[in-house]
Amino acid sequence: MHTDLVAALDIGGTKIAGALVDGHGRIQVRAQRPTPAREDGDTVMRAVQEVVGELTVSPLWERATAVGIGSAGPVDRSAGTVSPVNVPGWRDYPLVGRVRAAAGGLPVELIGDGVAITAAEHWQGAARGHDNALCMVVSTGVGGGLVLGGRLHAGPTGNAGHIGHISVDLDGDPCPCGSRGCVERIASGPNIARRALENGWRPGPDGDTSAAAVAAAARAGDPVAVASFERAAQALAAGIAATATLVEIDIAVIGGGVGKAGEVLFAPLRKALSSYATLSFARHLAVAPAQMGTDAGLVGAAAAALTERTGAAAAGV
Amino acid sequence: MHTDLVAALDIGGTKIAGALVDGHGRIQVRAQRPTPAREDGDTVMRAVQEVVGELTVSPLWERATAVGIGSAGPVDRSAGTVSPVNVPGWRDYPLVGRVRAAAGGLPVELIGDGVAITAAEHWQGAARGHDNALCMVVSTGVGGGLVLGGRLHAGPTGNAGHIGHISVDLDGDPCPCGSRGCVERIASGPNIARRALENGWRPGPDGDTSAAAVAAAARAGDPVAVASFERAAQALAAGIAATATLVEIDIAVIGGGVGKAGEVLFAPLRKALSSYATLSFARHLAVAPAQMGTDAGLVGAAAAALTERTGAAAAGV
Repeated sequence: MHTDLVAALDIGGTKIAGALVDGHGRIQVRAQRPTPAREDGDTVMRAVQEVVGELTVSPLWERATAVGIGSAGPVDRSAGTVSPVNVPGWRDYPLVGRVRAAAGGLPVELIGDGVAITAAEHWQGAARGHDNALCMVVSTGVGGGLVLGGRLHAGPTGNAGHIGHISVDLDGDPCPCGSRGCVERIASGPNIARRALENGWRPGPDGDTSAAAVAAAARAGDPVAVASFERAAQALAAGIAATATLVEIDIAVIGGGVGKAGEVLFAPLRKALSSYATLSFARHLAVAPAQMGTDAGLVGAAAAALTERTGAAAAGV
Repeated sequence: MHTDLVAALDIGGTKIAGALVDGHGRIQVRAQRPTPAREDGDTVMRAVQEVVGELTVSPLWERATAVGIGSAGPVDRSAGTVSPVNVPGWRDYPLVGRVRAAAGGLPVELIGDGVAITAAEHWQGAARGHDNALCMVVSTGVGGGLVLGGRLHAGPTGNAGHIGHISVDLDGDPCPCGSRGCVERIASGPNIARRALENGWRPGPDGDTSAAAVAAAARAGDPVAVASFERAAQALAAGIAATATLVEIDIAVIGGGVGKAGEVLFAPLRKALSSYATLSFARHLAVAPAQMGTDAGLVGAAAAALTERTGAAAAGV
């Protein structure tokens, strides 16, 4: 049987990935280009067109019924535009119209990258079977997305779930976003490393000062490294508890490089959650590591396209 | 034409109000009893039964098709139980089953009181026409509810929108809920008054140390009173901005006694919001005072019952 496929695009500051994805979330064809992030907008768009072009010459293309895009944000789903922080050539760039033209007029669904990851975890990963979930990426930045009432909650502009930029410390350090004490300002990988260094942690002979190196030191018992992860866990817990208190979720899924730190992060996170998620309906919240790998953005963009085309039941999102 | 009605119950720590409400949100019949909040659970229930009984003897009762309950929380909509903080005799009390029995078997919809207020503001008040809204009650406590995608978002247990107990100051003062730095701990009426008194504000000859008296002093230019409202506004802004960043809302409606303080609250609130709601999709957020009066709980409970019975279109929620 020749079932339908959707085309998926995962657009970030480093690479532009594309795929044809079947109704079970399996990637059938791939294409990829580096993102010429420092070039002008039309040059960046040409890289996208090359990726789409590579997909359209596949014999499977004729079965594609829609295109899903997960893009670095902010995005504006209602206007069909994107303004990725790390791609200065794109400001209110009409990505949806350009992709529709490149894809022969197929319907195009645009969501933010945190929302795409969430769609993937809900369809195939750690949030599967959960009707109310927060999925996060904790890495260079902190992003996320929400599933509410069994459906992806993208929000009118496709940016919902931006947990990295809620303030959990209203008098705290200024964040590049303009606010103060944001979850990202405390819990992102670079901030975990910065705080460890400021408090006297020193890297090993390889000179690695990444959050992964701080995590290794924490596992070996370095108290400054442990404390930096505990502080990150506290900020993540306050943000996750706020989400549970505001919209009711029963699981928070954490991916990204910092999410891979394991119990160095998850043990203090569970402890801090019991301090911040105190109301009866928020108290039984689970936290779990993400299950989807590097294809999460593509699989999630595909899920969004399938959902938009066929209703929530098809992709379970 | 004899259109349908719904019965509505608004259950708080002070009074139990009931009404028959028509499809336009107009109250046709009323009943009320004080809440015997310090008595055992069955005694409290008898007061509810008396209110329902008074409604059932109305000649209009035969047109009632459902019952909506807005109750002090926490509630558990999925279990049909309530555990209001201020009614210790009710813990996991099976209110829905008891009300259904008292109402001759009509279907019963249960939501938290913050959700009920939100349903009312969305149907008839300041959030009318807004598909994505946060409605708050800032008074002795701080409660709230959400409208997302044009529909009331009650959450699985009916408690969504509890903005008073999200932490905006993760190292802040302990809150009676068990967490720290909650919005309520900084912005509720009693905390506005406490902070003013601690910083040297003194009441007038009448000895009134309420938040309303602090508001009057702030309007007269008292700098300590002004500062206490500014701090409350900062915490409310951080919480509202967090909500906009997490779920995308375009308006925050503020009711309750503190909401009536007017520009003493709203001017610093708008200023603080521009500091905390910084992402493109959150930047155009409006704040507005609530429009519904003391019947908001009844009208909102009616809206929830109408919605549950006929789908979102009927009551616009």
